[in-house]
Amino acid sequence: MTDAATDVDRAVRDAAASGLDRASRDDRARWLTAIADALEAARDELMAIAREETHLSEARLNGEVGRTATQLRFFAGVVREGSYLEATLDSPDRSLVPPRPDLRRMLRPLGVVGVFGASNFPFAFSVLGNDTASALAAGCPVVAKAHPGHPRLSRRTVEVARDALAAAGGPESAVTLVEGLDAGVALVTDPLVTAVGFTGSTRGGRALFDLAAARPAPIPFYGELGSINPVVVTRAAATADVDGIAAGLAGSFTRDGGQYCTKPGLVLVPAGAGFEDALAGSLAGAAPQRLLTEGIAAAFDRGAGAIAERDDVEVVFRGEATDAAAPVVIATSAVAFAHAHEAFLEEHFGPLTVLVRYDGDDELADALRVLEGSLTASIQHAPGEDVGPLAEALGRISGRLVFNGWPTGVAIAWAQHHGGSWPATTASVHTSVGATAIRRWLTPIAYQDAPAAVLPPELADGNPLGVPRREDGVLVAAR
Amino acid sequence: MTDAATDVDRAVRDAAASGLDRASRDDRARWLTAIADALEAARDELMAIAREETHLSEARLNGEVGRTATQLRFFAGVVREGSYLEATLDSPDRSLVPPRPDLRRMLRPLGVVGVFGASNFPFAFSVLGNDTASALAAGCPVVAKAHPGHPRLSRRTVEVARDALAAAGGPESAVTLVEGLDAGVALVTDPLVTAVGFTGSTRGGRALFDLAAARPAPIPFYGELGSINPVVVTRAAATADVDGIAAGLAGSFTRDGGQYCTKPGLVLVPAGAGFEDALAGSLAGAAPQRLLTEGIAAAFDRGAGAIAERDDVEVVFRGEATDAAAPVVIATSAVAFAHAHEAFLEEHFGPLTVLVRYDGDDELADALRVLEGSLTASIQHAPGEDVGPLAEALGRISGRLVFNGWPTGVAIAWAQHHGGSWPATTASVHTSVGATAIRRWLTPIAYQDAPAAVLPPELADGNPLGVPRREDGVLVAAR
Repeated sequence: MTDAATDVDRAVRDAAASGLDRASRDDRARWLTAIADALEAARDELMAIAREETHLSEARLNGEVGRTATQLRFFAGVVREGSYLEATLDSPDRSLVPPRPDLRRMLRPLGVVGVFGASNFPFAFSVLGNDTASALAAGCPVVAKAHPGHPRLSRRTVEVARDALAAAGGPESAVTLVEGLDAGVALVTDPLVTAVGFTGSTRGGRALFDLAAARPAPIPFYGELGSINPVVVTRAAATADVDGIAAGLAGSFTRDGGQYCTKPGLVLVPAGAGFEDALAGSLAGAAPQRLLTEGIAAAFDRGAGAIAERDDVEVVFRGEATDAAAPVVIATSAVAFAHAHEAFLEEHFGPLTVLVRYDGDDELADALRVLEGSLTASIQHAPGEDVGPLAEALGRISGRLVFNGWPTGVAIAWAQHHGGSWPATTASVHTSVGATAIRRWLTPIAYQDAPAAVLPPELADGNPLGVPRREDGVLVAAR
Repeated sequence: MTDAATDVDRAVRDAAASGLDRASRDDRARWLTAIADALEAARDELMAIAREETHLSEARLNGEVGRTATQLRFFAGVVREGSYLEATLDSPDRSLVPPRPDLRRMLRPLGVVGVFGASNFPFAFSVLGNDTASALAAGCPVVAKAHPGHPRLSRRTVEVARDALAAAGGPESAVTLVEGLDAGVALVTDPLVTAVGFTGSTRGGRALFDLAAARPAPIPFYGELGSINPVVVTRAAATADVDGIAAGLAGSFTRDGGQYCTKPGLVLVPAGAGFEDALAGSLAGAAPQRLLTEGIAAAFDRGAGAIAERDDVEVVFRGEATDAAAPVVIATSAVAFAHAHEAFLEEHFGPLTVLVRYDGDDELADALRVLEGSLTASIQHAPGEDVGPLAEALGRISGRLVFNGWPTGVAIAWAQHHGGSWPATTASVHTSVGATAIRRWLTPIAYQDAPAAVLPPELADGNPLGVPRREDGVLVAAR
């Protein structure tokens, strides 16, 4: 065993022995809240480290710490409310064919979860981000793999969480950090790890997904990978307010250096509506943003250079290159896009977007047909315009449909969905944000004719904990 | 493209164009009911074919047709009830950080589903079985791969379903049959297929799972594979009623030739309690059962022969071999089992079970520790006996815990769970039986600030269809 594998093995064994799966829902909710409080108490110290490691702005990082604490508290609420358990009771009926025994089903924690932090959200999608918050809420201890873009922040954040757990009487070993490529491989292949959450690149995510699937006992790998987040601007919308829409797009695709998985990377605009000029105008004063890591900056320069040199494109805008990344806007025709869509659908992580000019409904429809799975799709439309067919076409490929808004900014809500089919994620039936993100770390168990003493209280006669349940097919809301 | 791939491609394209995903829930429920009615109307004809192809008894097949119709109607009820959609609405709140737009989420059908029929349930887990019923309910058309053990039955059953769909005004192309190994491979790798359901052997399932995972765009593969279904007989239970328990086990592991995924294949019995003699006594008059196929019969003979020849076992019972399979009971010690558990945990598809004699709690605990994922685990206990620790240990490895009962016989119910971790299934967070089996074929979509005209009626203001919903975090039961 390599050193990395030994470290991972120890962390995973400690996590498995943490007892988090046996803790009450109330205790887990309290611990999540304690971690949120501790994170906010350490805000200044953590932000200073994050500033150095990520180059993200103070305002952005400040917001992100708040978001991360909100997420932790949100999942505390989800655990307390209890409907995530899907508690379901059927009373016996021997007259049925086949006969029905007394059956009681609920979800239980899967076991130790591996979480890979992302580069672009050093808090909210990193070691204490959504994956960790939802896993701890579910009762699954987490072994987190630090992103190499912010190792010191990851270490300190996990320390803060462990101290908070210990102070609140919880198991410190429920969150552990491991570091390095070898540790990541060891984590995905460790026999005691039961599921993995990942936010990152398509290439890295695919490699780890393949490892998880090739295990002797395969485990679910929930990867959020690349997403182009197409936007359609209707002709009526452009006619009504081309400048306003262009300004909105400029703000969205350049926000924090365009380093969002929800960045609008492909915008279908009506030909001849003046969108290109309006967008270039909006970008005239845009400040460059230093990207997260040298590697990301180099990849962005390479990608932007390659697409700008294509014969079938026009460079609409290219800000002045400094040591930071300046916005780039490329335009092409719908015909060229339909012809070479694979190249145009490649994600550029950074402030670049591609305009695809369509002339009429047929060209638009042809372009929509070749789109791939995406986290979001957006429609800029005029008031009262019929966008039903557009919504249906985009709904087939995206997890979240945005109307007259921009995809960056993912609210924390019961109704949120942050997912989509390949290549947006490796597991299109699940989400990584929103209340149902907890479902990824749970597995059902059914009790057949169980003695009362064996049943979890959530399945007991009389519903002593008052959780929402389904009883003989009828939903019974919480008391 | 091979001929098989061409056939599959055509079937998948037709299925994708069936329009089933756009049909109303009422229509889909009506069509499922029409298929159930047609299946029962064709009962005599279908049973005659099944008798010839599977050698299963008339009583068994008669019950299975009824079960299959019940499943189809059960999912019609699930679709009508509507809570499977997980309709969730959050109203906007711009004061939150991050701000919350109007968000409305529900589940939508994934797309074309591939279903692999099983050998041992020619109706209930075959071309019109649980996978197909739940997929059609979800709005996903099905391309079914016939099991080679009952090709004529598969063809005729699909014809009955397609005729029923056509007569009820539904899309015939929502169910199509393909046949042969190459067609199976083509089905799992077809770009338009979005998910696969499979019931069968660990080896076959693993090969197809690997294909699904290796696709350029991987898809979920829901395989129900091998399961040993351990049973623990406590000393108190054996003392109280060794003959009754032995008779129950004899009935369960030999039922229909032991050809159940829920057959109890490993029974932990207290040493010296007389269980072996009692079981042998119960089996004295057991009739042999001709197994489903020549291949299954040959594999059973090979496997039974190999385990019987081990140095560390005793053959407790072996019925007389004819052209049918006779019951086999093997016994070993808990020490030998713990030492060579991999060999003992191999599934024998047919009427064979392994008794593991334990002497004291430590030996029992050691044996429990090496168990693998299983669809079920059962505890035979005395009234009032504390089986909490046993239930906890077995609950970690099994999807359904059975108390003072036998695992064969899987009720159709809201609270049913038929799943478990590897090797019981390839996807432990899902089930293939029970209401939530429908979840496998659905993916979320969230609408952000959508115009009213675009929203599905289940997400509209005022809840015009009266489905159960969550509104601003509060569950609202159906009206």
